[in-house]
Amino acid sequence: MYYFINDYNEIMHEKILDAITKNNMVQTKGYGDDKFCDEAKELIKKSFYCPNSDVYFFMAGTQTNLTIIDAMLTRSFEAVIAVDTAHINVHEGGAIEASGHKIMNCPNENGKLNPKYIEKIMEVNLKDDHMSLPKAVYISNSTELGSIYKLDELKAIWEMCKKYDLYLFLDGARLGSALCSDKNDIKKEVLAKYTDVFYIGGTKNGAPMGEAVVINNDALKKEFTRQMKCRGSISAKSKIIGISFAELFRDNLYFELAKYANDLAIKIYDKLKSKYKFYSEVESNQIFMQISNAQIEKLKQSFAVEVPYVLDEKTSVIRIVTSWATDAKKVDELIELLLNM
Amino acid sequence: MYYFINDYNEIMHEKILDAITKNNMVQTKGYGDDKFCDEAKELIKKSFYCPNSDVYFFMAGTQTNLTIIDAMLTRSFEAVIAVDTAHINVHEGGAIEASGHKIMNCPNENGKLNPKYIEKIMEVNLKDDHMSLPKAVYISNSTELGSIYKLDELKAIWEMCKKYDLYLFLDGARLGSALCSDKNDIKKEVLAKYTDVFYIGGTKNGAPMGEAVVINNDALKKEFTRQMKCRGSISAKSKIIGISFAELFRDNLYFELAKYANDLAIKIYDKLKSKYKFYSEVESNQIFMQISNAQIEKLKQSFAVEVPYVLDEKTSVIRIVTSWATDAKKVDELIELLLNM
Amino acid sequence: MYYFINDYNEIMHEKILDAITKNNMVQTKGYGDDKFCDEAKELIKKSFYCPNSDVYFFMAGTQTNLTIIDAMLTRSFEAVIAVDTAHINVHEGGAIEASGHKIMNCPNENGKLNPKYIEKIMEVNLKDDHMSLPKAVYISNSTELGSIYKLDELKAIWEMCKKYDLYLFLDGARLGSALCSDKNDIKKEVLAKYTDVFYIGGTKNGAPMGEAVVINNDALKKEFTRQMKCRGSISAKSKIIGISFAELFRDNLYFELAKYANDLAIKIYDKLKSKYKFYSEVESNQIFMQISNAQIEKLKQSFAVEVPYVLDEKTSVIRIVTSWATDAKKVDELIELLLNM
Amino acid sequence: MYYFINDYNEIMHEKILDAITKNNMVQTKGYGDDKFCDEAKELIKKSFYCPNSDVYFFMAGTQTNLTIIDAMLTRSFEAVIAVDTAHINVHEGGAIEASGHKIMNCPNENGKLNPKYIEKIMEVNLKDDHMSLPKAVYISNSTELGSIYKLDELKAIWEMCKKYDLYLFLDGARLGSALCSDKNDIKKEVLAKYTDVFYIGGTKNGAPMGEAVVINNDALKKEFTRQMKCRGSISAKSKIIGISFAELFRDNLYFELAKYANDLAIKIYDKLKSKYKFYSEVESNQIFMQISNAQIEKLKQSFAVEVPYVLDEKTSVIRIVTSWATDAKKVDELIELLLNM
Repeated sequence: MYYFINDYNEIMHEKILDAITKNNMVQTKGYGDDKFCDEAKELIKKSFYCPNSDVYFFMAGTQTNLTIIDAMLTRSFEAVIAVDTAHINVHEGGAIEASGHKIMNCPNENGKLNPKYIEKIMEVNLKDDHMSLPKAVYISNSTELGSIYKLDELKAIWEMCKKYDLYLFLDGARLGSALCSDKNDIKKEVLAKYTDVFYIGGTKNGAPMGEAVVINNDALKKEFTRQMKCRGSISAKSKIIGISFAELFRDNLYFELAKYANDLAIKIYDKLKSKYKFYSEVESNQIFMQISNAQIEKLKQSFAVEVPYVLDEKTSVIRIVTSWATDAKKVDELIELLLNM
Repeated sequence: MYYFINDYNEIMHEKILDAITKNNMVQTKGYGDDKFCDEAKELIKKSFYCPNSDVYFFMAGTQTNLTIIDAMLTRSFEAVIAVDTAHINVHEGGAIEASGHKIMNCPNENGKLNPKYIEKIMEVNLKDDHMSLPKAVYISNSTELGSIYKLDELKAIWEMCKKYDLYLFLDGARLGSALCSDKNDIKKEVLAKYTDVFYIGGTKNGAPMGEAVVINNDALKKEFTRQMKCRGSISAKSKIIGISFAELFRDNLYFELAKYANDLAIKIYDKLKSKYKFYSEVESNQIFMQISNAQIEKLKQSFAVEVPYVLDEKTSVIRIVTSWATDAKKVDELIELLLNM
Repeated sequence: MYYFINDYNEIMHEKILDAITKNNMVQTKGYGDDKFCDEAKELIKKSFYCPNSDVYFFMAGTQTNLTIIDAMLTRSFEAVIAVDTAHINVHEGGAIEASGHKIMNCPNENGKLNPKYIEKIMEVNLKDDHMSLPKAVYISNSTELGSIYKLDELKAIWEMCKKYDLYLFLDGARLGSALCSDKNDIKKEVLAKYTDVFYIGGTKNGAPMGEAVVINNDALKKEFTRQMKCRGSISAKSKIIGISFAELFRDNLYFELAKYANDLAIKIYDKLKSKYKFYSEVESNQIFMQISNAQIEKLKQSFAVEVPYVLDEKTSVIRIVTSWATDAKKVDELIELLLNM
Repeated sequence: MYYFINDYNEIMHEKILDAITKNNMVQTKGYGDDKFCDEAKELIKKSFYCPNSDVYFFMAGTQTNLTIIDAMLTRSFEAVIAVDTAHINVHEGGAIEASGHKIMNCPNENGKLNPKYIEKIMEVNLKDDHMSLPKAVYISNSTELGSIYKLDELKAIWEMCKKYDLYLFLDGARLGSALCSDKNDIKKEVLAKYTDVFYIGGTKNGAPMGEAVVINNDALKKEFTRQMKCRGSISAKSKIIGISFAELFRDNLYFELAKYANDLAIKIYDKLKSKYKFYSEVESNQIFMQISNAQIEKLKQSFAVEVPYVLDEKTSVIRIVTSWATDAKKVDELIELLLNM
């Protein structure tokens, strides 16, 4: 049985394991006040050309999302706009609302947010002070459907946000897969320019855990450690995350791993596209593919995948995820099996 | 200028004013522990045939909704299901989410909730423990679009709720208008059977303020005073609300007033239906009517109404609301003006 | 049986009742957008010499406290400092914490806050970013123990607040009783100078209900209607409160009523002080008096009072409250009974 | 420079590092649904003799506290009782209140809770439904001052909790140090009997991170994964924590490490007790010692320690923490330096 369930089925890339092993007994202060975190922060700011940004390390994605959104929405009546398929809307157990914040939904287009919906919401809600007032927009790149934003799409959202005084927050749990997509035209040097805050997912791209939050807007920087603490998001041993990100960004490992994962996904897609229908465009390391339930049964004898959507009595959508850790031979076996079903 | 803006443009029915005047200097304890509230509670339980229900008095609608929903959703991951047009979704400034609770939206059908959406949500969310778990359903009757629930619709929702262990909460800010609709077939003696909690709106039907919450499910009764207190929903002088509801329910005044308001609305509809298009069915005291912006300008010289929706550059939807206090002559003048535009 | 339980045992002063009666059927918009509220706001700003302040009308005290504190504490890690006996700490069912905010306690001195505790807390908490960061201070005047702040005390707290960038919020549920105390030296024209926000209690001084919030600090003014809405604190018929406050402030009625209540309390104290011990200084309309349980039994045959503290097996503290509505003859009877026990 | 700052200055015990290295590329599902977590849970339940308890893995302490307390306090007016020095009260940035819950403080006795304070609070608050209603009690063992609970103390608290229908939650961030104290008489087989929920701290006793929550009360077990998710407390790679706890509990390593740390602390205390005053009793791996500021300056040239309290202008309290990773030779150097100052 081989897993294409997710991009966190294995623990960590060996270079990170080596670095942790080497520094295991080095004494430091806790909570990120250490040389490993310092180095990682500098490497990240250099890689993304944002020397004035602040970088913070979180342990996991949901806590990152809830803590950042809680930081952006300082008034109780403020809301965050997101597409209906957004992770914060669907798969975080109501974490944003449990923190006291409303998510205003709009329809997704291939998993992405069309800025016209931002305008629509703002035009109505600004006028009526018995309504919520949006103060932030949440997007993810790559999206929950594996699609990626193009530069002009990102810029259009950014401009709409600035028109209406909204923070733009980009959830980069799978940022590597987006920036290393063949279709991508967002250079990493512009990401900090077109977002107020974004995060770089480590958990899904080689780190044992951890997300690196990059805060570009000064208004969001103040007292961010207290903000993290009161939402339970700081690790006493943040240095594990610091060591991990230092490895990932010292020599471009982060992007090499993401490209590796993407290439395997594209290979699967290319080989299967004439035989199968795809539920969303394959642009990164997630594949959403339509397949009969009978085929799923057969597939499951050798490979583990998720079945996120049921289309009708006979057909479902499976999700195949490749990662930094995926065995290329297993990809070939998977392709062969699916071709010969 | 005459107002058809809302059903709270005047203060209170004269019978209530007389009762307040008469009892103004009668000493009682505070916070509803008085004979006026006691009498009102008994009258309400008798009127709705629910001797075992508990009755509590709130000052206003949003605080009622947020306090009841907060009482129903005891776990942070629990959610309430409501249609997209629901008052809690649109016009309460994010009050439910500010209290820590997620609203799960579904499409409305003429302002009403189709129970098939409850089933759809439950089937998906029950299976995935990274998702919110709905624990309550919110409906309003009459709805935000003036429509009313039929008995079979209410029962179908109730049965779906019980199938999935969900509380059913009926927002009756305009309950009188629903129960006194010509189309209504829900007898008031069954309301407590097919809801876990509902409220009887006083503010919009003759009281100076106040909503009477009727709790039918024992699980929701415990420590309800503390629940109200911690959400800022108890008035030291609840007896004003008690006196009001005693007047409204001692001799059926509540339903007489609602019927009066409905009759005027139906009259407007009947006279205008051949000339104008209506945005939703006119079944109670709210009329949503399509009209040109030029006509609106003319109308506004004599009558104040809300313009809730813009349809296109030339056309909008106006809302005309009648009430216990509406002057029947002004209704005639309004009809004439609109007929002759 | 005559009640000295609280200052809200009767409904409203007759002048207010007359004004409501007179304006009962006058049509206005809802939610405070009416001429009655406008007039009341102007009268209040004139009375307190604060033309640039904003005034908002709430229905009740706990919702006022929770909404204002929620407006002042915009970050989740921020806290409000208050004495251990503060109403928000003891008698509001955890309303502040339910809204997501920490109260940092310090010892009271005769019900009042000594600014040295503010300094103590700030010195420790500013240094450690794993701690809450206070952003506001809550005081009440008169206090929960009936004591009042002197001008130098208020100024010292204000200066400490400004030193540490803290908002100062004064809960004036019984503001009239404080400003009309014989001991008071805070002129009403300086109150807006030495607070960021305060409120003028109507419920306990002649209004049927309602508290008038006066916001002096511009930073707290923005989008305050949305803030109130999302905490369930706006009444559709705010005009009732507007009418009430217009009566109270048009010809100084507010202060006349408070003085009347205070005078009766001081009379009781003067007559009884040689015979009984008092739990706190009698400076306003609340008397906290030590008395044996046997005496309480006797007292309760004719008069209703609260018994807030049990001192030992034989002795308790009763609270006697006078108000605008208290019958002066009953005060004499109370004095006589207590003198002859 | 050698660190006695905390028990998380190094990363992890080598046996855990070996196990992670060995299993690094083993594929599993995410979020704790794996054989490593399964094994660790069984070992923990065996070690603590609680086969019917449920075990969950968290990443860090504050998120554990806030998630469990949020699970125990299901109503908005409910509160948790804790001593003034409790971690949740002082060093978690207001995390409990940010989640909507009130902490009711009482004085500590050598860092511990005396159950008489529980009774005092309950007697007052049960009677008055405008007050918070406590529903849980929080204690930590060893405490924030390094002291430990004796069995009779724990039982007395437990019995008081059951008398008043309160959950008892024991924060075991340093549970090993408590159970391995020379003074301890709480056998680990009784811990699950006298608590509703407790946690076993991994972060401070050899694991790279992680706390194992043991839920003994059935009422708290339901939907706990959703509860964790909505508070951002689940790691996709929980298996790292599972692997760590399996190592810690397979052959008693957890207790060996804790005993090692305690022994070093007791050694320091024994050598220094005739020369220095101690701020609290030394019973586990934390030492709180009074020392002059001049001595601190000297000490800091070779050793890093925290200075949690300032006693007067010349004297402070330092905290010396030993751990599984402490170098015994450095302890000797520290003792010698402090003896010769």
